[in-house]
Amino acid sequence: MTFSERLFNNIQSIWNQNHQHPFVQGIGKGTLPKEMFQEYMKQDYVYLIQYAKLYAIGVQKANDLASMTHFAQLLHNILHFEMNVHREYASQFGITTEELEQTKPTPNNLAYTSYMLSVAQNGTLAELISCLLPCAWDYWEIGKLLKKQYGHQLENNPYKTWIETYSSDEFGSIALWLIKLLDEITIGKSEDELAVLENHFQITSKYEYLFWEMLMSGQDWPL
Amino acid sequence: MTFSERLFNNIQSIWNQNHQHPFVQGIGKGTLPKEMFQEYMKQDYVYLIQYAKLYAIGVQKANDLASMTHFAQLLHNILHFEMNVHREYASQFGITTEELEQTKPTPNNLAYTSYMLSVAQNGTLAELISCLLPCAWDYWEIGKLLKKQYGHQLENNPYKTWIETYSSDEFGSIALWLIKLLDEITIGKSEDELAVLENHFQITSKYEYLFWEMLMSGQDWPL
Amino acid sequence: MTFSERLFNNIQSIWNQNHQHPFVQGIGKGTLPKEMFQEYMKQDYVYLIQYAKLYAIGVQKANDLASMTHFAQLLHNILHFEMNVHREYASQFGITTEELEQTKPTPNNLAYTSYMLSVAQNGTLAELISCLLPCAWDYWEIGKLLKKQYGHQLENNPYKTWIETYSSDEFGSIALWLIKLLDEITIGKSEDELAVLENHFQITSKYEYLFWEMLMSGQDWPL
Amino acid sequence: MTFSERLFNNIQSIWNQNHQHPFVQGIGKGTLPKEMFQEYMKQDYVYLIQYAKLYAIGVQKANDLASMTHFAQLLHNILHFEMNVHREYASQFGITTEELEQTKPTPNNLAYTSYMLSVAQNGTLAELISCLLPCAWDYWEIGKLLKKQYGHQLENNPYKTWIETYSSDEFGSIALWLIKLLDEITIGKSEDELAVLENHFQITSKYEYLFWEMLMSGQDWPL
Repeated sequence: MTFSERLFNNIQSIWNQNHQHPFVQGIGKGTLPKEMFQEYMKQDYVYLIQYAKLYAIGVQKANDLASMTHFAQLLHNILHFEMNVHREYASQFGITTEELEQTKPTPNNLAYTSYMLSVAQNGTLAELISCLLPCAWDYWEIGKLLKKQYGHQLENNPYKTWIETYSSDEFGSIALWLIKLLDEITIGKSEDELAVLENHFQITSKYEYLFWEMLMSGQDWPL
Repeated sequence: MTFSERLFNNIQSIWNQNHQHPFVQGIGKGTLPKEMFQEYMKQDYVYLIQYAKLYAIGVQKANDLASMTHFAQLLHNILHFEMNVHREYASQFGITTEELEQTKPTPNNLAYTSYMLSVAQNGTLAELISCLLPCAWDYWEIGKLLKKQYGHQLENNPYKTWIETYSSDEFGSIALWLIKLLDEITIGKSEDELAVLENHFQITSKYEYLFWEMLMSGQDWPL
Repeated sequence: MTFSERLFNNIQSIWNQNHQHPFVQGIGKGTLPKEMFQEYMKQDYVYLIQYAKLYAIGVQKANDLASMTHFAQLLHNILHFEMNVHREYASQFGITTEELEQTKPTPNNLAYTSYMLSVAQNGTLAELISCLLPCAWDYWEIGKLLKKQYGHQLENNPYKTWIETYSSDEFGSIALWLIKLLDEITIGKSEDELAVLENHFQITSKYEYLFWEMLMSGQDWPL
Repeated sequence: MTFSERLFNNIQSIWNQNHQHPFVQGIGKGTLPKEMFQEYMKQDYVYLIQYAKLYAIGVQKANDLASMTHFAQLLHNILHFEMNVHREYASQFGITTEELEQTKPTPNNLAYTSYMLSVAQNGTLAELISCLLPCAWDYWEIGKLLKKQYGHQLENNPYKTWIETYSSDEFGSIALWLIKLLDEITIGKSEDELAVLENHFQITSKYEYLFWEMLMSGQDWPL
């Protein structure tokens, strides 16, 4: 069993809860209130700015030129491919780019990106990948699942582009490359080291859940 | 007005809520259930391990040997002075040092330390200090306030040592030195730069509140 | 006077020595022995791998999305545009890509990249730019100077592509953007802060000189 | 064979050259010109300021509280124990503390500390230790060797305190602890990972040699 297979097997109960989350299912059915999706676009936009930085740290931590170049490519893709989906939705909803950029992250959003950045700066390439993988991988899982569940009624779904984007092979190729690299660099690692990596993977998977929760509950700062 | 006076003036409403928080007041009155204090000792212990690392980053980011040496001294003090209070309380309550160290941080605890570490690693010395100051400063404020409010009935308070520690001049000297250094290195900084620093100070002050909240509500990870 | 104008004025005596260096002039005249240029391609290739990482750190340290995106773009350019010149020359000379990547940096080469990476990781965005600017700026100056001096006899010069590359507007636009950004973020900075930045700029300018020297003298590790 | 035994065996030819270096032997015999030792004290003082930062990074990268606390202790020791030897010598020679602190590092000195800091910030705890170990270990070897060679004539040697310090058990305990920790954390590591660590160890051992060379030759910046 590869390390990524172990991660995948052990994360099922957590990811299933993500997949069944009313926010996620609301996107799939197209029934999610627009104001909620709008708030999501804003929160996810500032999330992605921080998330992209992890790929820049990947460039620094990479062991060879090929990985370094690939991380630089993915960094470029996130800043253009994934963030453009957000800018387009925002423009549909009448949100300006300035509004997007000036969004203040909620507590769960800030907690999630701070955790990844803190681990990535201080840790190894394998720790970095373990942190950023759930976002790349579980979004792809969600995209494919929603397409399977609701693909027949996609034409009238206002969130069609979102589902098409995250179920696409192009988006999936990010996760596949990260998985391949993680499997390569964890060969021969001790159980102690793997346990640290799996802990990062589980924590950021739970932060995925807390992100959907925060959107559903309208979480904000106290005081 | 010095920069620290500005920070202090603008943070009053947030810190007042910290000071009036039932958990804090429960320590002052000595009425806080022991199980809650016990959980606090465990969570604060793993918090302090991460918090101490900020002083190590201070050693790295310091501009001169005197500041560098002082950060190294404070690092040493936290690992011995402040953490010993926790070890003593833990031992009174029958918690072993292993249990302390193996405590898993709650979401709010992890969010708080991740935020500080992420900012400190990527940012300037002034950003680092702005992040770690609320913990040093507001704890001292709380210590002094509780001593003033409940000092006459301290003998029967099981949390007497806690109150004595955090109201002490020795503990206060940490905050005073950080304040002095921050005021020095922010002289002549632009409003844009000061606003970034104040944002860190306000966010970590709110994390102080969320820490008390988490203890009161028994916050844990979902799933 | 902008900060970059100050840097430029004060660096003239150092840069002039770089421009008059026999290695640089040998490229311009086309008289540099091929084995020397070959060694340069190898050393500069491993230099660029480290140099590119500085742009990744720029992505992390950037204050806004526009700068972050531009650093990501430049990172991409270096890994493709500038390194391709090296790969092409290498292939002309029968050096494989593996040989390029496995080149061991000489002491001066390693000192130069270590200095920049060490400062960039611990410092501010302005410190990062002050470190990486001489390589981008003085190479452009050298490219333009050699074109002016020897442009009439470029057809027979085996190093024609090198001169065309580094004198091009496309290459120059890297330096111009860095200069503009540095001027913007240093407005209102104290003389103490500017002196730190100028020191980085002067040290890395001297490392440029030491790089040419090392190639000329065939510097290697002792023992 | 432990990993440190492997490192020790393979480094013998390099360390022997360090031990036989005229500067080192001049200290042992007490014949080194005072101006040279004076310059050494100044260069080594600014070296130690940077070297101490590596122990602060050790606090950050440590995997458990015990290692973290020990790194903090060593950081404290360097700033007090080892640097005091320098301050005392400086005062004997009429050098003020200001002069010590304002010394500009030579190219080899800056290259050495930049390399260690660059690797330590980006790398693992094992990489950090591999970088800082030669300074702690080979100085102890030198101290013990000089004591053995010249211990009978130490009373008239102006560098007696230096030899006593670096041959002492107290100083040796730093190297011993680092060696023990490195052996522990490298158990089960792949040959690829060990080769990276050994490369750091060899490069910083060579920088030790280049440091003695720089002092002997009066190395300075060009231009």
